[in-house]
Amino acid sequence: MTGQPRESDGHVGTVFPQVAHFAEPLHLACASVLGPYQLVYETYGKLNVRKDNAILICHALSGTHHVAGHYAEDPRAVGWWDNMVGPGKPVDTQRFFVIGVNNLGGCHGSTGPSSIDPATEAPYGASFPFLTVEDWVHAQARLADLLGITSFAAVMGGSLGGMQALQWTLSYPGRVRHALVIAAAPSLSAQNIGFNEVARQAITSDPHFHGGDFYRAGVIPERGLRLARMLGHITYLSDDAMMAKFGRELLGGTPHYSLEVEFEIESYLRYQGKKFSERFDANTYLIMTKALDYFDPARAHGGNLSLALAGVQAHFLLVSFTSDWRFSPARSREIVQALLDNRVPVSYAEIASNQGHDAFLMENGDYFAVVRAYLERVARECHA
Amino acid sequence: MTGQPRESDGHVGTVFPQVAHFAEPLHLACASVLGPYQLVYETYGKLNVRKDNAILICHALSGTHHVAGHYAEDPRAVGWWDNMVGPGKPVDTQRFFVIGVNNLGGCHGSTGPSSIDPATEAPYGASFPFLTVEDWVHAQARLADLLGITSFAAVMGGSLGGMQALQWTLSYPGRVRHALVIAAAPSLSAQNIGFNEVARQAITSDPHFHGGDFYRAGVIPERGLRLARMLGHITYLSDDAMMAKFGRELLGGTPHYSLEVEFEIESYLRYQGKKFSERFDANTYLIMTKALDYFDPARAHGGNLSLALAGVQAHFLLVSFTSDWRFSPARSREIVQALLDNRVPVSYAEIASNQGHDAFLMENGDYFAVVRAYLERVARECHA
Repeated sequence: MTGQPRESDGHVGTVFPQVAHFAEPLHLACASVLGPYQLVYETYGKLNVRKDNAILICHALSGTHHVAGHYAEDPRAVGWWDNMVGPGKPVDTQRFFVIGVNNLGGCHGSTGPSSIDPATEAPYGASFPFLTVEDWVHAQARLADLLGITSFAAVMGGSLGGMQALQWTLSYPGRVRHALVIAAAPSLSAQNIGFNEVARQAITSDPHFHGGDFYRAGVIPERGLRLARMLGHITYLSDDAMMAKFGRELLGGTPHYSLEVEFEIESYLRYQGKKFSERFDANTYLIMTKALDYFDPARAHGGNLSLALAGVQAHFLLVSFTSDWRFSPARSREIVQALLDNRVPVSYAEIASNQGHDAFLMENGDYFAVVRAYLERVARECHA
Repeated sequence: MTGQPRESDGHVGTVFPQVAHFAEPLHLACASVLGPYQLVYETYGKLNVRKDNAILICHALSGTHHVAGHYAEDPRAVGWWDNMVGPGKPVDTQRFFVIGVNNLGGCHGSTGPSSIDPATEAPYGASFPFLTVEDWVHAQARLADLLGITSFAAVMGGSLGGMQALQWTLSYPGRVRHALVIAAAPSLSAQNIGFNEVARQAITSDPHFHGGDFYRAGVIPERGLRLARMLGHITYLSDDAMMAKFGRELLGGTPHYSLEVEFEIESYLRYQGKKFSERFDANTYLIMTKALDYFDPARAHGGNLSLALAGVQAHFLLVSFTSDWRFSPARSREIVQALLDNRVPVSYAEIASNQGHDAFLMENGDYFAVVRAYLERVARECHA
């Protein structure tokens, strides 16, 4: 078992995003109705004749539809899960038809707060509705309809993406045969919500936020976005990984006694924050964190996750990482236990890693071997 | 062994702050010279004739000199370690003369950035120098001189206060007989520094910060302070303690789909942030976090903590708390090991607690019994 690329491993090559338009409005959990709207997506591999070899990949907080490959006009813009998805890779595009989709409310092409509201011909801004994981799944189901996919071989994702995979098995139990739920949780803890709340307060208290309608003011709440992202990055890494990666050596060996960058971690966080603030929409960030906070399938069942998962028909692979303190292995085990309570076939792998929550994005021999082996079984169930 | 108050336990009663003026400037680690300056402090109990029963209590990031008792004019203003310090309490004021002092750079009476610089007759603001734990210890040593204390029975503190206790044994090995280092670390990890950096960026990016000279603008960077404190609070508590205290129930039972408070943790953090921003100085916060980042006795010894502690003469009690993820037990054990390497007498207690870092401030039977027992031995070494 090794994480080294196999000889047959390759990249999906040049890819291009597609846009699906939906004229019929979507009824949302918040009781608002959104539409018309569009979803931007990419596909890799070929849908077979029976259309039963499709895998939907759901993205996390800051992810996009660009899962694998690169763009002709920008060869460096490699997909965020390119190590996982491609010919001969764990999600083998020689066998599966893989779909990446930017979630509704996003800022990478799907209709979101920065999109033009046809009713006002101005950006939605603060008027864009808050969304839930359920809403995303419904929107994704319509995309599946459009592509003629009645049943997914698998829906998979990490973190918030894993929550969507889980929700698929609840919202559309007959349309997903396998769910790969990676580095996820059945709900956020109070600590998770607390971190999200600090990020939101950073954004909304930025004078450039303008109550969410900053577009027409011609500014962005970049200070708030920077802070939100810096904080996020700390929670994506383990204490050990940060220490190994950045240490605590002072630039120049001695204190500067100033507010300038002195430690490498400061430099890293400032850089990541700045980069993020230039590419991400503040309202999308708020929507994403709120969707995370709201996700809680057990809520409607008195907090009983086993009851919540009673109608599940899919089979599951759960993966967690030992040093992930954002969504710890214990949270994945809650899902595993609830599935076992319902006699749902579930495989569970707790992967030794010191990379923290970010481990789900990184190449790791054991992790990739588990996903590969699971999906090889799934592939054998599909038609040629 | 019990954490219940004993019959003899009592409060120190009404206390009052005193001010010590120092005309001679202090030479700081940053090569600046500060002075004249003042330190505000409180004392409880009586200094014995031999002046060998004094205990210095060092405060943490947001602490003050008001360790125990209450003020006549405000009976609700109880000291931050009142459960620990008093007649019959673990730090027994019937036996010890206890001193609490507000650190230099503070905002509760000791000379700090919000104080008037005699040279300009305006607040120091951005011109106030950055300080180190070593600087604080030197300033405290001068206060000890003033009080005629040549040797402390003990210096103690939690978190950043524990670092000061440790530094005392290095800067003045002959002047401290025991160090009680609680919930501390020999240095911050990259993660710790990262959290501090986010807090600093929150403050300095607040348009009301004015580069540190907000006093003359008549504003305070309260948004930044609020965010810094909210973030701090999350790291002071354990995930479990937050879940037990706040849960994840929605106010009203269902999502509001808005940015208003929906979860109890949001309400708590907003309240704590607001309260803090009204009482704490932004520049002091920056100074305190920088002092934390800089603290690293091993730095001058090639990262070898055992070498750094070679000159220590004091005896030690180290205490850590199992759920403290800010300064984990492993960090305390690093200090214990380095002391053992030097054959320094050290007692170590790892207290089972789910309260996280904040546990050092809370009454806990095992914790208080350990401190009590240790200080009973210390008391027997003092003269009557």
